[in-house]
Formats: sequence, structure tokens, C-alpha cells
Amino acid sequence: MKYCSECATPISVRIPEGDSLPRYVCNHCGTIHYRNPRVVVGCVPQWQDRILLCRRAIEPRHGYWTVPAGFLENDETTREGAARETREEACAEVTIGSALSMTHVVHVNQIHLMYRAQMNQADFAAGEESLEVALFRRTEIPWDELAFPSIRFCLESYFADLDRDREDFHIQDVRRPMHPTPPAGGDS
Amino acid sequence: MKYCSECATPISVRIPEGDSLPRYVCNHCGTIHYRNPRVVVGCVPQWQDRILLCRRAIEPRHGYWTVPAGFLENDETTREGAARETREEACAEVTIGSALSMTHVVHVNQIHLMYRAQMNQADFAAGEESLEVALFRRTEIPWDELAFPSIRFCLESYFADLDRDREDFHIQDVRRPMHPTPPAGGDS
Ligand SMILES: [Zn+2]
Ligand SMILES: [Zn+2]
Repeated sequence: MKYCSECATPISVRIPEGDSLPRYVCNHCGTIHYRNPRVVVGCVPQWQDRILLCRRAIEPRHGYWTVPAGFLENDETTREGAARETREEACAEVTIGSALSMTHVVHVNQIHLMYRAQMNQADFAAGEESLEVALFRRTEIPWDELAFPSIRFCLESYFADLDRDREDFHIQDVRRPMHPTPPAGGDS
Repeated sequence: MKYCSECATPISVRIPEGDSLPRYVCNHCGTIHYRNPRVVVGCVPQWQDRILLCRRAIEPRHGYWTVPAGFLENDETTREGAARETREEACAEVTIGSALSMTHVVHVNQIHLMYRAQMNQADFAAGEESLEVALFRRTEIPWDELAFPSIRFCLESYFADLDRDREDFHIQDVRRPMHPTPPAGGDS
């Protein structure tokens, strides 16, 4: 951020009065330009005893496997966003179920929120951002070729809950790639 | 948003190539300025058989009661953010517990994520954004003077779970104030 989006004056970085952190501030019109974490929504689409994964055609992590997921847009619910991303990346229609996991990737300011989902039929294909899309049995999951910590976490949580016949919500904070912080209470 | 924050050229609104929605686009440097939902984090601070509420000294909903909550900052976890807001608004130190509720207020593009919390001691006071701060027994909650649908939802979820001796995670989508959409599956 170099210029004020309201008046085109060059931006300063300083701590506004009554605040405690440095902000992007316009000294001309007074606007404070806050920067906030962004939300990524996705799902684990299930068809019978298999789940649907996409191999990424885009950076970062080109060529690695992911569940369908992407940035939440304004004016859609998180479930609508997860279904939209599944349509765009895997050309599949799903019914979104319970909330599965939230991975907060703190160092990139992203919150990855994943849902369980049922595929409405066995139709799918690679969307523009996918090299290929395929159904995997649990024993076939490419664990060593997953794109992000949030993908591993959501799939581990998914199968752990399947074993216990539960549908819990799982939370993980990640400060650096692949180095989760301690769970509940450890970071307060 | 009127000017490009990268090059100070006036912004256009159009659908970029390969996209499906109108965006704020700079025709000079090509930057697409995405706008995304923001995350609010908060908690229900508990002390013995009471919970801590704050009466708002700021708009919107000046004079109404809320749990401590505010916008998540970059570079902090959601639990750290909830504890920070409690410190700022109620001058209280808490230990954050399990995730309680997520209310997505779609028409204002805000996701309100609430945690359970324990107060570390019975100390509290009104911060700059609060008129007063007080501990309430369940029977004393000012249900008709709560600031937002997300506050009512998190408190209802909190007490319902207390009755069942559970700590579940509760999700609600709100399209207009006080008119929740149907629960799980109804909006997919
Ligand atoms: Zn300005
Ligand atoms: Zn520009």
C-alpha cells in the first residue's frame, strides 16, 4: 500500500491516536487503512467410500493436492463459498455438511475454514485452477503430496472423526509452515 | 475505494478476465483490489456462576450490552485476539477455552467468532470503548438489550451447552439483522 485509496495522497505508517499498533494512515484525509486476515473456505467432498481431491494448476504449491478451497467472497455464506469453490475447481456439485476444521495460518494472515460435504452425484472434472481431480479411498490419500498444513489437518481430523463416529470441529494455529502452536489455552 | 493504492490512478469497477464478479481494478498498473469479509473475535468470560458483559460506549449500538469482541488483527491468533479485546474493553485477563460460536453476518461481511473463557481473577473495569462492565448471573442477562444477533446466539449456545454439559461449536448465518437463515444444509 503506497497511496490513500480515498484521496491518492502518499500513505504514512504510524500509530494513530488511541491505537496501539502502526497502521497505514493518510495524513491528508485522515483515513486509517486497516489490514485484516482473510478467510479461505473449502470442503472435503465425499462420494461413497472416497473423497475428492484436486491437484493444483496454480502457485503456490503447483502440482500438489488439495481439497477444493479458496478465498471467501463478500455477500456469500461460508458454506456457499465452499460449494462455489468445489464447482470452480472440481466441477462438482456438493451439499455442505458440518464444520470440520479451522487452521489459522498466522504468518500469512489466512484462516482456512473447512466443511464436510456430500457429492450430489459422481460427476467431476478439472476446473481452470486444477491439473486433475480424482476420488481417493482413505488408503490412497497422497499424504506426502498435500499442498498445505490446513489440508493435512482437515483430512486427519476428518478420518479421526470417522473412526469415532463423530463430527467435531477442530482448531489449529500455525505460525510457520508445518509447525503448529500448542492447542487450546497454550497461546492465550 | 476511489484510487489505486499502488499507483494513485482512479479505480474502475469491472469483471477481470477469467473472473466472474465485478472488482475494483486499476487500468494503469493492473492491480485487482479484492474486498473480503472481516473476522471479529471475542469471548464469554466466566467467573464462578457469572459471565462478564460490556455496555458499548461506541456506535453502532451505543448503550447496548456485548461480550468483549473486536476485529482480528494481522499476526495474532484468534484466541490471542479474543484475549486482547477482553483486556482492552473490560480490563480483564482471561484464559481462552474452546470455540463456542461463529455468526456470519453476511450483509455486513463480518464473521463473529466467539470462544469460551475463564477469568484469571475477579478484576475488571470499563475500557475506553465501554460505558460499564459487569458480571451477570444467567437469570440477570439483559436479553433485550444485547447489541448484535451474534451476541444473543453465543450466549444462548453457551447456556444450552452448560445444561447439556457439552462444549459444542455452533454456526449461524445472518443475512439481515435478527433474521437468521435456516441451519446446516439449508443454504448450500
Ligand atoms: Zn487520504
Ligand atoms: Zn494502479
